[in-house]
Amino acid sequence: MKIKIVEVGLRDGLQNEKTVLPTEVKREIADRLITAGIRHLEVTSFVHPKWVPQLADAEQLAKELSKRPAVTYRALVPNRKGLERALETAVDEFAVFMSASETHNRKNINKGIDGTFPVLAEVVELARERGKKVRGYVSTVFGCPYEGDVPVSQVIKVCERLFEMGVYEVSLGDTIGVATPVQVKAVLKELIKHFPADRLAGHFHDTRGTGLANAYVAMEMGITTLDASFGGMGGCPYAPGAAGNLATEDLVYLLHGMGVETGINLDALCETSLWVEKRLGKPLPSKVLRSYAGSREA
Amino acid sequence: MKIKIVEVGLRDGLQNEKTVLPTEVKREIADRLITAGIRHLEVTSFVHPKWVPQLADAEQLAKELSKRPAVTYRALVPNRKGLERALETAVDEFAVFMSASETHNRKNINKGIDGTFPVLAEVVELARERGKKVRGYVSTVFGCPYEGDVPVSQVIKVCERLFEMGVYEVSLGDTIGVATPVQVKAVLKELIKHFPADRLAGHFHDTRGTGLANAYVAMEMGITTLDASFGGMGGCPYAPGAAGNLATEDLVYLLHGMGVETGINLDALCETSLWVEKRLGKPLPSKVLRSYAGSREA
Repeated sequence: MKIKIVEVGLRDGLQNEKTVLPTEVKREIADRLITAGIRHLEVTSFVHPKWVPQLADAEQLAKELSKRPAVTYRALVPNRKGLERALETAVDEFAVFMSASETHNRKNINKGIDGTFPVLAEVVELARERGKKVRGYVSTVFGCPYEGDVPVSQVIKVCERLFEMGVYEVSLGDTIGVATPVQVKAVLKELIKHFPADRLAGHFHDTRGTGLANAYVAMEMGITTLDASFGGMGGCPYAPGAAGNLATEDLVYLLHGMGVETGINLDALCETSLWVEKRLGKPLPSKVLRSYAGSREA
Repeated sequence: MKIKIVEVGLRDGLQNEKTVLPTEVKREIADRLITAGIRHLEVTSFVHPKWVPQLADAEQLAKELSKRPAVTYRALVPNRKGLERALETAVDEFAVFMSASETHNRKNINKGIDGTFPVLAEVVELARERGKKVRGYVSTVFGCPYEGDVPVSQVIKVCERLFEMGVYEVSLGDTIGVATPVQVKAVLKELIKHFPADRLAGHFHDTRGTGLANAYVAMEMGITTLDASFGGMGGCPYAPGAAGNLATEDLVYLLHGMGVETGINLDALCETSLWVEKRLGKPLPSKVLRSYAGSREA
């Protein structure tokens, strides 16, 4: 089995941290992650700096990234304007995003779901004209902080429209970290009836400790692309102090235990996270990282 | 499906915490856990106080426990002397313990594996004469801090001897938290050829974040008894700052998501852990607990 890990720490992680890291530090993080074996890096988001001050340096960072063979740099773009800025940088691939639940979409994007489709369609069209691939993110697939349960039919509808636009992959987000393995199995079983499993990615959060179990079940269901954040960086905006993204270290440990080759050097990845902890001035929640740090002390 | 949760926080959790809690506080923790719906409580260990000062009050605590219907109090006993002390208390059930790996057994019990069997056999015999049930703990089932991999044949040998002595159940310990789901599946597949699944319990640690995924896989393999520690109390003696026991809150959240009725009120359990955090002067690592605490603040 081959699993593709999309490292989202520099984007989804950092945008949920209070500390704003200097561009220089972000670039060094990217370099260190690549040295540790990461090949797919989501580096930033071209949303308006007003909304995500942590990523206000998107353009500068994306222009200064070191070109590396076999490495894909990715960035989120909310609309045509964001894409036009991003197209002038070293970013290789783009991602558009929306929610499966109406209320979360409105709160996050300031538009209803139906009103979001044409905005994203324009982005995907232009990016593809320029020869760039686009990923689609769907948030609140497994639950919405405002609406609670989200019907699978709604997820299918949103995925269908995104694939029609031309995204090559949809990443299914457990935005608030409520999913459990049985639910992941049930939702994926439905989705796989409509879309090939290799066009779907799992984006799990560990807010209630189920991130790794959900990732494991997703792989059992045929999902081969998983998103994760080094050190488990990035909290949950709906619960201060709670965990956010699944930690890359924890996922890599699981994969190596399954005999899956990732090309990632777990020690080097932990060292990168420890280096970043010093810049953030706080420990990161990855369990493997804490175990690695503790073993060094012991 | 019915899952039995054995709450080990007062024993396996506390023995790995630096803070020594007063007996009075421990008794209140037991009462609060029971109010939250916990029915199987491992409350202490009758080892020599020199080895585990956190549990030096074993006798006093075990004498002062409130008698509650449908609640089972359990305690570890290392030998005949420990059992004799424990028999004079309110404890309902006992547990003996040893390791699947020779080096860990020697370091932990100061005896080789073959030399440990007669000591435990004497305990089990006396306890059963007194009408008490005895559980067996096997440590280092999925890996040893000194020997690394532990052959399944060695685990089977130790389990066989324990069942021959008359223990009614063996709890399989991932003492250092190295197990991954594929390994759990493989080891259980072998064990289940020799012992009924309902005589085996899973005792997973979350040191590398795999605790919940391992518990999930164990249930898929037919295991119906799982050990856990409220709040995830108790670290890993081999890696300071790393997590130890699987958190009861995280396990209960998983189970409720699977539609498994536990009789446990998750909010009440979280409140208990928050109450204990104040006594310990530090946050506990359960992800569900952190999410609960954060949601209250948000």
